[in-house]
This record gives sequence, structure tokens and C-alpha cells, in this order.
Amino acid sequence: MQVSEAEWTDVEKKVARTAFDKAYEREIEALLKQVREQASTIVDLSNLWQLHDFLSAKRYGIEGKYDYQYAGLLFVFAGLVKEGWLHLNELEGLDKGKLSKVAALSRM
Amino acid sequence: MQVSEAEWTDVEKKVARTAFDKAYEREIEALLKQVREQASTIVDLSNLWQLHDFLSAKRYGIEGKYDYQYAGLLFVFAGLVKEGWLHLNELEGLDKGKLSKVAALSRM
Repeated sequence: MQVSEAEWTDVEKKVARTAFDKAYEREIEALLKQVREQASTIVDLSNLWQLHDFLSAKRYGIEGKYDYQYAGLLFVFAGLVKEGWLHLNELEGLDKGKLSKVAALSRM
Repeated sequence: MQVSEAEWTDVEKKVARTAFDKAYEREIEALLKQVREQASTIVDLSNLWQLHDFLSAKRYGIEGKYDYQYAGLLFVFAGLVKEGWLHLNELEGLDKGKLSKVAALSRM
């Protein structure tokens, strides 16, 4: 299921980069909002360490997930679609083979 | 400089416990306030990971510092006085030897 960089046209690369950045922006915005809200309700140390654990998990997850390498990009997109950070139609411009792979993977 | 539990009278133990808990309460309250304030100003991911790093350091520091064992308690009190979480006069009731050790250590 890996797709080497040579199999991406310039147009596809542009579509991919735009979609990737958009999903990233959405997820980060949502995360920042969630943390500001969660932090405003902190009343004790247990809440505080919950926030710390949450940030540790998110940091690990986000740094691992947003890896822009063509070989694994269809997997990344499928995950982002599954999680709701990206809509399939934002990948229009990729060839049908890639689109159907993302769609199939996102339903797994 | 270690002081075994046998060297603490019941009255001293009560004074020590009260002072220890008071300092803990003050430091935690200040920390919670600081985090709520810092979190409310978060605008990007860099701010967020700064908060995460800050919480990691604080968690490590607090869990290490508030260790209620008589053998090391004078060191703990000296640190708390130095950092401003405890006032020397809140240790009144300890014998003069212990008080002067805490005072001396807190100036180091």
C-alpha cells in the first residue's frame, strides 16, 4: 500500500500538502481550544496531572502522526479522515486509485 | 544532619505535619493558579508544549520534594523556607537545635 514519491504528480503533491496542512491546522486548533477549556476548570492536583497526562499523549500522538512522507501518506490521510480532521473530498485531485485506497483504509 | 523519628516529640511531629501540609497547600494553590493563567494565554503549539514541559518539571519536582520522612524533614523544611512556601516562625514548637538547622540550611 506504500506509494513512492515518483508516483505522485505535481498536482497531487499540491493537493496532498494543502489537505495535510488543513487537517493539522484543524486538529491543533481543536486541541488548543480543548486545553484552554480544560485548564480553566482545574481545581486540584489530580486535575492538573490529568492535564499533564493528556498533553503527554497528545504530543506523542501528534508528533508521530503528522509525518509528511509520500510513502506513507495514504495511511496518514486515511487516519485523518477516520478521525474527522479531513474530508475525503478535500483530497480530490489525487488519482482514483489513491482516493479509493484512502477511502478503504479510513473505514478499517 | 539527619534526624531520626525517635528524636521528634509528639508536639514537634504535630508542628511539623501542620507546617508541611501548609507549605504543600500554598505551593499547589500557586501552581494551579499559574497553570490556569498560562493556559488561558495559549495561542499556538509551541505555547502548549512549553506548558507540557513546565508541568513535567513541576510534577517531578513536587513528587520528589514533599516526602514526609522524619530523617530528611529538616532539609525539606529548609528548602520550603528558601522557596518561600514556609515561614520559619511556622516551625515554632520544634526544639532550638532543629530550628537553627533549618534556618542555617535555608540560607545555603
